[in-house]
Amino acid sequence: MNTANAQTISLKFNESKIEIIDQTLLPFTEQWIDITDPKDAVLAIKNLKVRGAPLIGVVASLCFGIFCRKENNKQQRLFWWEQLITSRPTAVNLVHFMNEIKPLVDSETSGELIFKKAYSFFKSDQSMCDKMASIGAEVLIQKLGLVELPNKQFSLLTHCNTGGLATAGQGTALSVIKNMGLKFSQMMTYVDETRPLLQGARLTTWELGHTKQKYKLICDNMAGFLMMQKKVDAVLVGADRITSTGDSANKIGTYSLAVLCHYHKIPFYIVAPTTTIDSLLKFGSEIPIEERSPNEVRGFASSKESLQWALEEVEVYNPSFDWVPSSLITGWITEDGYYEKEDLAQGSFAKYQKAGVI
Amino acid sequence: MNTANAQTISLKFNESKIEIIDQTLLPFTEQWIDITDPKDAVLAIKNLKVRGAPLIGVVASLCFGIFCRKENNKQQRLFWWEQLITSRPTAVNLVHFMNEIKPLVDSETSGELIFKKAYSFFKSDQSMCDKMASIGAEVLIQKLGLVELPNKQFSLLTHCNTGGLATAGQGTALSVIKNMGLKFSQMMTYVDETRPLLQGARLTTWELGHTKQKYKLICDNMAGFLMMQKKVDAVLVGADRITSTGDSANKIGTYSLAVLCHYHKIPFYIVAPTTTIDSLLKFGSEIPIEERSPNEVRGFASSKESLQWALEEVEVYNPSFDWVPSSLITGWITEDGYYEKEDLAQGSFAKYQKAGVI
Repeated sequence: MNTANAQTISLKFNESKIEIIDQTLLPFTEQWIDITDPKDAVLAIKNLKVRGAPLIGVVASLCFGIFCRKENNKQQRLFWWEQLITSRPTAVNLVHFMNEIKPLVDSETSGELIFKKAYSFFKSDQSMCDKMASIGAEVLIQKLGLVELPNKQFSLLTHCNTGGLATAGQGTALSVIKNMGLKFSQMMTYVDETRPLLQGARLTTWELGHTKQKYKLICDNMAGFLMMQKKVDAVLVGADRITSTGDSANKIGTYSLAVLCHYHKIPFYIVAPTTTIDSLLKFGSEIPIEERSPNEVRGFASSKESLQWALEEVEVYNPSFDWVPSSLITGWITEDGYYEKEDLAQGSFAKYQKAGVI
Repeated sequence: MNTANAQTISLKFNESKIEIIDQTLLPFTEQWIDITDPKDAVLAIKNLKVRGAPLIGVVASLCFGIFCRKENNKQQRLFWWEQLITSRPTAVNLVHFMNEIKPLVDSETSGELIFKKAYSFFKSDQSMCDKMASIGAEVLIQKLGLVELPNKQFSLLTHCNTGGLATAGQGTALSVIKNMGLKFSQMMTYVDETRPLLQGARLTTWELGHTKQKYKLICDNMAGFLMMQKKVDAVLVGADRITSTGDSANKIGTYSLAVLCHYHKIPFYIVAPTTTIDSLLKFGSEIPIEERSPNEVRGFASSKESLQWALEEVEVYNPSFDWVPSSLITGWITEDGYYEKEDLAQGSFAKYQKAGVI
């Protein structure tokens, strides 16, 4: 297994060390930090230096794999396994990856095998991203008629950050966008700033700039006016959870975008690995929606600075996610292939019984 | 004419002095500043201490009226008339009010008559707001079935600030909302934060809190998800310009709200004085849309602090307004009455030939 010098936009890796880009300092400072033992990983995860469920899962499991090659003591291994799996309770891939490793720890498997298992998660995430990028580009080229008109000017729109800062590969929706941008130099992407945490403004702009793609940042409330002016040809977003019927939960604001696309007859795609599909759920209404701190809406806080513009006593409604009914979704781009509503009606998503288990 | 102790949420007035609330310090500090001569008014307007086209127009003309009672010299009067009318080029009421006063200055009319003219603008603005509040409440009570079900729980949603901080009266859309809140204690209002300048988060929350109304602040991208959950019964917004066919320009984000209302079958109202109607224009596409500084989207700056979260090199699209086609508007609430599309088709707006002239 050749693992030397593996590198993504957010992760550098060789067999003894992981480095991650400190996402709390982006977009202003590109600082890489060493993750040499599980304690470093736990701290980086807790302090949000690494974000995105797939990326967190890969960093934690890889770091644990490296640790187990040096540490044979079962109690020590179990202690750090526990610390890592609880470091970010909402990161579904972290829980799944660590749970897959658990039997190896229990059976006192060699560190080398545990490392190999962790490494397979990394490679699998990268490979899923590459497949989505490739399948998504095929779908868009067909849908936008780019075979017949390869020089057509067109624009995509995306929400939040679904790129190499969220995954251990190229990303989900953003992997498709970056792949399309490489193929079509006349393409440009509108990036929703994505209030309240501004992942679009801070991270997606940085990532698209880093990879020399053309984009423009907008406030979330400008998307409709762009569509009215026929300036958006397709919208691509990620998903946190997809039900058997295709209802898809994603960052707050996604539902509004889907309605706007429906009204303007603009194709709206979900790009997500099949590990996101939880076919034990049928409808989006079954997905619990977390409400987050009102302070996120009363102002904005980065790792270094904060600014409040609404009074402390201002009441807030701050759901972190919403969900889009499958009726508003043109298609689902996964690493396993492209699906439309007709496919789902025939049970295409039913086989993904256990969400998150690769 | 009894003008003693006239007071609104943003303006205090007696025959010799104006005081305004310094809007650049809101919502954290409620500081009133004296406007004793035209120079004070010019500075307050230029430094954004007073905002909202009607309020700016009233402050400038009232201040000019007070000045003319003390100053008979025509050259002095013309000098300050010129300074005031050019203090905020985009404030349409300012230009109209000052232009109406101009003949009185040219003809060396007594200061008392100039003051009376200015005072009539103030009273007229207040009266228009009161009428909109009253007519709008009638429309909503009927539309929401509140005669039959006076204790029904319901919620309104609004965008930007259209209240007593924008007008010399109770406001436009917000005057209807405040009037409804007084009548129905079970009512609540969702307030869009209104990126990029956050007038909803800063000013509308302050104004609704000041008048003891129930509200919740949301990010603009949350409105759709609220509507999906049937948590919004009607949307009311202001307008900056309305064409003869009813197409209505307003703060960016208004168009997205109108589409979301259309999809969810939620009534969507424009509340604006007839002075906003420019029947020389037929369609919204004829309304020029100003693009503002990209820095507004790369971060946020108040009068005291600023925070940037996107890099300086980030490209931005920042239209300050959008426009809603009349097909998406349920009705127009004006001081002259309530209009629906059928009324406009019969030429109801054609009589308002000269926008902004009272």
